[in-house]
Amino acid sequence: MDNSKLNTLLVRGTDAIYPSKSFLEQKLTGSNVLKVYLGVDPTGELHVGHTVVLRKLRHFQDLGHKIVLLIGSFTAQIGDPTDKSQTRKQLTKDQVIDNAKNYISYAKCILDFDSENRPEIVYNGDWLEKLTFKDVVELAAHFSVQQMLERDMFQKRLQSNLPIGLHEFMYPLMQGYDSVALDVDVEIGGTDQTFNMLAGRKLLEQYRGKEKSVVAVPLLTDNNGKKMGKTEGNAVFLNLSPEDMYGSIMSLSDGFLENMFVLATDVSIEEIEQMMSDLSGGANPMKYKKKLAYILTKMFHGEGGAIKAQEVFEQVVQGNQLPADMPTQVLTSEPLMLRDLLVKTGLVASNGEAKRLIEEGAVSIFVGNEEIKKNDSKEEVEILDGMIVKVGKRRYKKIITGII
Amino acid sequence: MDNSKLNTLLVRGTDAIYPSKSFLEQKLTGSNVLKVYLGVDPTGELHVGHTVVLRKLRHFQDLGHKIVLLIGSFTAQIGDPTDKSQTRKQLTKDQVIDNAKNYISYAKCILDFDSENRPEIVYNGDWLEKLTFKDVVELAAHFSVQQMLERDMFQKRLQSNLPIGLHEFMYPLMQGYDSVALDVDVEIGGTDQTFNMLAGRKLLEQYRGKEKSVVAVPLLTDNNGKKMGKTEGNAVFLNLSPEDMYGSIMSLSDGFLENMFVLATDVSIEEIEQMMSDLSGGANPMKYKKKLAYILTKMFHGEGGAIKAQEVFEQVVQGNQLPADMPTQVLTSEPLMLRDLLVKTGLVASNGEAKRLIEEGAVSIFVGNEEIKKNDSKEEVEILDGMIVKVGKRRYKKIITGII
Repeated sequence: MDNSKLNTLLVRGTDAIYPSKSFLEQKLTGSNVLKVYLGVDPTGELHVGHTVVLRKLRHFQDLGHKIVLLIGSFTAQIGDPTDKSQTRKQLTKDQVIDNAKNYISYAKCILDFDSENRPEIVYNGDWLEKLTFKDVVELAAHFSVQQMLERDMFQKRLQSNLPIGLHEFMYPLMQGYDSVALDVDVEIGGTDQTFNMLAGRKLLEQYRGKEKSVVAVPLLTDNNGKKMGKTEGNAVFLNLSPEDMYGSIMSLSDGFLENMFVLATDVSIEEIEQMMSDLSGGANPMKYKKKLAYILTKMFHGEGGAIKAQEVFEQVVQGNQLPADMPTQVLTSEPLMLRDLLVKTGLVASNGEAKRLIEEGAVSIFVGNEEIKKNDSKEEVEILDGMIVKVGKRRYKKIITGII
Repeated sequence: MDNSKLNTLLVRGTDAIYPSKSFLEQKLTGSNVLKVYLGVDPTGELHVGHTVVLRKLRHFQDLGHKIVLLIGSFTAQIGDPTDKSQTRKQLTKDQVIDNAKNYISYAKCILDFDSENRPEIVYNGDWLEKLTFKDVVELAAHFSVQQMLERDMFQKRLQSNLPIGLHEFMYPLMQGYDSVALDVDVEIGGTDQTFNMLAGRKLLEQYRGKEKSVVAVPLLTDNNGKKMGKTEGNAVFLNLSPEDMYGSIMSLSDGFLENMFVLATDVSIEEIEQMMSDLSGGANPMKYKKKLAYILTKMFHGEGGAIKAQEVFEQVVQGNQLPADMPTQVLTSEPLMLRDLLVKTGLVASNGEAKRLIEEGAVSIFVGNEEIKKNDSKEEVEILDGMIVKVGKRRYKKIITGII
């Protein structure tokens, strides 16, 4: 038994273990191979925050346990009400299948699919689709309405007089039955899934007399508890190009550094503590951020992608130079108002965004190697072949004149 | 259109009509044949109170509408939580089938099964068994948890801190889906079923854009609102022999007379009002009770049964004579303690009941035609061939001595 691996599994990025840490530790130090699963509803765009649970699953794989990645092909169509203040829109089967493919491609960057003990991928539609009304009633009979209403988010809705759809009470039954169907020893999930995971613990105990361990993993937040998320505007999305992923991590607030290292990388706790101590002592965070950006870009784009992204960052953002390669846009040589130029080249999404960025001083034009700052959105700009339009630190377009 | 029949349908024994009386009246005065259903979960012993809804169904049949008697073969296995302060035990399929046969045999005494427009009998297991988890979620999505919690009995349970089983929230969905599956125009049920019937009204509107009328029929109570029921100890059970049914009605408190006539017979409202006015004027209720007992006994046992039951009542209870026929019991001629004699002959269920009845002066023995009152439960009684043991006004056993 590798004690450092065991410790990583039980402590690092583990918020709570049910029924207890010692119960799971005893199982882990025994000789049995445990069946450990993570269920995910592939419902939207993925960001680094979504990888934290996958890394916990990897810790089990590293200790030789059987890991199962459950795709909620059924549950995703229903929609987990977790942390939604409003009842959620249901997805179609096609949307779910597309999202699932996408999810698995990223999971391959974190779990070891080349190992002989490779992850098993299962779809909960395979058993949940077969359950009848009677089965559902039997599942439901194990819970009281009062127990369901104890969930934080339901309490919040009751207090705000927002409706709780009756079908939302079914979600814990579905996720709970997954544990029964898979007959697992351990379930991993975010802390926001604790209620559902414990519902499964109860059902597994009632249906098979088996005590499942539940490992709740923290959500990825900065040091002040601010979540990483799409709504929060700080998500490092997994579908970004190497350069954009690297840049997106460099743009994160420093408060994310520690948790990102702990929850999203393998960098040792000792090394992380040293970095944090250096930072408190006044060290420049740039070096550590670049290390983080490099590690994560490498995770999803390989070493080549990471090296190139780092070069571009150093050259363009730190060195304030023009990048070696940049996207091009063909335009006619007729003059354009500056804000229209930004919209036509796709550098901004709207006239409004163009105006705002120009007024903030974020826009310039290069003719030859000379950078000319622009700050009048209505300025008429002459269109020259080879000129470069720059927005912010990392958005560029090279103009080619021609007939379009 | 027969106006008196229409009036009977809309007014007599009708507690409430949804969405309105006028909406249903309009449908009834049109030329369409309406599909009208009553759903029953055959879960227990039936008494006269259970016939009130059947009579309302008959009113629709009398106007030429298509009536459907739905046997809740599925729902009865789950159990309606209505008016139960505790979660109810679920029945097995076999129990439900036995109860259904029994129910239909009594329904035949009230509905016209000989008519060409005979009642259709359907079983909700035929469609509810086929629903999948996904279908259930879709049904559930039409309701909020808050709407479910509005039900009186759920409010009561919440306030008394008694659990509401989550499966109990499924019951309105099942009964509601019956309306969709049957595509009905009208549903009939007891007032205690109003919530479930309105759930079906909502679902039918959402699934088929059809507006179902709901007719809520009152529970059978006495003038003070005291229910007829097994628990209340005043139920006139339908499985009684003619004599016992007749006697059981004669034992009802006078307060049941008016409602029994209105809700459980065809006696005209004018005639019932005359009887009630006579009673307020000091008339003896015996005559009216005998009329009621005769009508109901005839309903379930035919004219012959009713005539004989009335004769026995007049002779034995009113005339205090021995009945012409009575059940016999073979005993050895060894003397028996009085209370053991009552138990051995099956006249009482226990030593305790024997003792109580003897002490109340309800027990006597006939030798020849001489009645000897008995009041010592430990008295040793000589067993004679042909002697008669009498308990209360209507329980008799004739003793035959022999080897057993």
